[in-house]
Amino acid sequence: MKILILGGDGFCGWPTALRLSKSGYEITIIDNLSRRKIDKELKSNSITDIASIEDRISTAKQYGMDIKFLNIDITDYNALYHNVKTIKPDAIIHFAEQRAAPYSMISNKERRYTVDNNIINTHNILNSIVDIDKNIHLVHLGTMGVYGYSKDFGDIPEGYLNVKINSTQKDVDILYPTNPGSVYHMTKSIDQLLFQFYNKNWNLKITDLHQGIVWGTQTEETSLDKKLVNRFDYDGIYGTVLNRFISQVATGNDLTVYGTGGQKRAFIHIQDTAKCIELAVNNPPSDTNKVRIFNQVSEVKSVKELAETLTKENGSISYVDNPRKELKENDLSVKNDGLKSLGFKPITLSESLINDVKFIAKEMKKNLKKENILTSPRW
Amino acid sequence: MKILILGGDGFCGWPTALRLSKSGYEITIIDNLSRRKIDKELKSNSITDIASIEDRISTAKQYGMDIKFLNIDITDYNALYHNVKTIKPDAIIHFAEQRAAPYSMISNKERRYTVDNNIINTHNILNSIVDIDKNIHLVHLGTMGVYGYSKDFGDIPEGYLNVKINSTQKDVDILYPTNPGSVYHMTKSIDQLLFQFYNKNWNLKITDLHQGIVWGTQTEETSLDKKLVNRFDYDGIYGTVLNRFISQVATGNDLTVYGTGGQKRAFIHIQDTAKCIELAVNNPPSDTNKVRIFNQVSEVKSVKELAETLTKENGSISYVDNPRKELKENDLSVKNDGLKSLGFKPITLSESLINDVKFIAKEMKKNLKKENILTSPRW
Repeated sequence: MKILILGGDGFCGWPTALRLSKSGYEITIIDNLSRRKIDKELKSNSITDIASIEDRISTAKQYGMDIKFLNIDITDYNALYHNVKTIKPDAIIHFAEQRAAPYSMISNKERRYTVDNNIINTHNILNSIVDIDKNIHLVHLGTMGVYGYSKDFGDIPEGYLNVKINSTQKDVDILYPTNPGSVYHMTKSIDQLLFQFYNKNWNLKITDLHQGIVWGTQTEETSLDKKLVNRFDYDGIYGTVLNRFISQVATGNDLTVYGTGGQKRAFIHIQDTAKCIELAVNNPPSDTNKVRIFNQVSEVKSVKELAETLTKENGSISYVDNPRKELKENDLSVKNDGLKSLGFKPITLSESLINDVKFIAKEMKKNLKKENILTSPRW
Repeated sequence: MKILILGGDGFCGWPTALRLSKSGYEITIIDNLSRRKIDKELKSNSITDIASIEDRISTAKQYGMDIKFLNIDITDYNALYHNVKTIKPDAIIHFAEQRAAPYSMISNKERRYTVDNNIINTHNILNSIVDIDKNIHLVHLGTMGVYGYSKDFGDIPEGYLNVKINSTQKDVDILYPTNPGSVYHMTKSIDQLLFQFYNKNWNLKITDLHQGIVWGTQTEETSLDKKLVNRFDYDGIYGTVLNRFISQVATGNDLTVYGTGGQKRAFIHIQDTAKCIELAVNNPPSDTNKVRIFNQVSEVKSVKELAETLTKENGSISYVDNPRKELKENDLSVKNDGLKSLGFKPITLSESLINDVKFIAKEMKKNLKKENILTSPRW
């Protein structure tokens, strides 16, 4: 089975590429290395010393993972089209979007880059599938952030919400009314509309994975060799909350909690990201009457709970003003039956958290720039 | 009051610019003249002989309508930003989108142009407002096509649908679950998400006008002089259904009805378009907690009814295969209380239809190319 991974050099893309290659899929990565360029722009860095893409590819080969790499910007439709036509993939996995909420809220430049890049990329991919082979299964990384956190809507279902239309008393499933919290999250809401229409009009086979906040660094495959190490972001722009906490603990600093810490969020370990995507690819949707939407999450925790788990033995918490516009506190309960029905067994926080803290502390202490931790823009 | 009209050279934009100028507003038009370029690309034409934008502007001046014109492509953010900053408008009226469903379904090139152009334009406008003056009132031309035509949802409300969430038994108003029928209509659904987020995060003052199918040619102002005449599209790509019918009757040809003609749609006369926009501009929303959405429609008719009205005295109907994916028949009832509450008194079909037929027949018979009528792509 041939798989094209768009954005395969990134935090989720790289471990997924390794995992699927290890499992025997024929993998091609397309990436324009934009995430590495943004590191330079922000004067930030991965705490881990990530190898160049060339070194990653040649090292993977030594371990029997034969991955092809193409440096292409897929906002260029013709380049994308040509390569999809040549590769003839069975599935395309789409990570090729700017993925940091804080980055998308810095200024008009980043807002526009995020919208232009993400929407053009998603739309170009859909067009290449329509024009080349409507049977290609598209697997897209969405986000839990499309849902918003309103109490009125109850437990978060997988993509579709059952409602009664008051004027007609009809019960219907509708695409969950989206309420994104940043320009980045909004682009994933927009992706949903693109998928809905392209599925309706051309019956495309699409799986949208609404992923929780990813944490952790290493997977079985990235641990095989120093040169396969995954990136680990700790800064206020790209570092997800738990990874920021881990790096703060590992370097003997206070944990900085935004607001009260009463925000509940859904989390998933990076190893599970790769596993879930393998499950989705391996089990394409049989019903193409609508877009298949799964919640790709392992568990729900409040930000405060996370901070307290991490400071149980040592370290302390420092509460700072929340730079984001979001509810101070919220309840959250998320369904993840879809991936579980395919065999997903989540890694929960307690099991492996401690390994990551030790790994980050021991190997990477030298790379943390403290001034990069509280760099989130306010919105 | 200063008003910036984006796309002010087009079918709706030009009569609106004249109307508002006549009413005493200070008008600047920004347009990249893309609609004129597409005419050349499609080897099609307006049945009316439209003047160059320069002639339009200088003629308008002779009648006391002093309109400024700038030839700018607003996908160029810096150019847009610079001009919004210089002009300091109180309101921006946004017509600057590719607006033909059939055009947006021709091939990947037109699909991509429609999405890239429409989304980048809308997003650039929102960014210029955030960066320059959050009090600028944005008036956007949406479409009834965002709603879709499902029976289950009852009468079409103005943008928001009242539903009961079955899991919590809460009654809430949600943004109407969108179900666009073409890539073009989908871009207006996407615009809704952009508006929702920019309104939520920066409290922007936005009116989204979901317009019905526009028909007619002339308004009081465009009738003042030959050189002010509005464009009139009759072809299978840009001609809206009633205008295609009018031109077929006027030139002694059969009316071509797609499918059974049982599709019910909402209509509005071009003169009412300009009036409604004036009402919206004159009465900005007082509540900025959500986007204000009005349905800009005068009446509902089935395609068959339209055809029969037009062929009552002479002419005949020819039923052709429907090139579109849409319901064969549907019921439709649309609320338009918002604009009516501001004073809107719709022109209905019977009153002025006959004037347009005569006008088109007498003045413009020479310009109709019959081979352009059945040019719609299939989708």
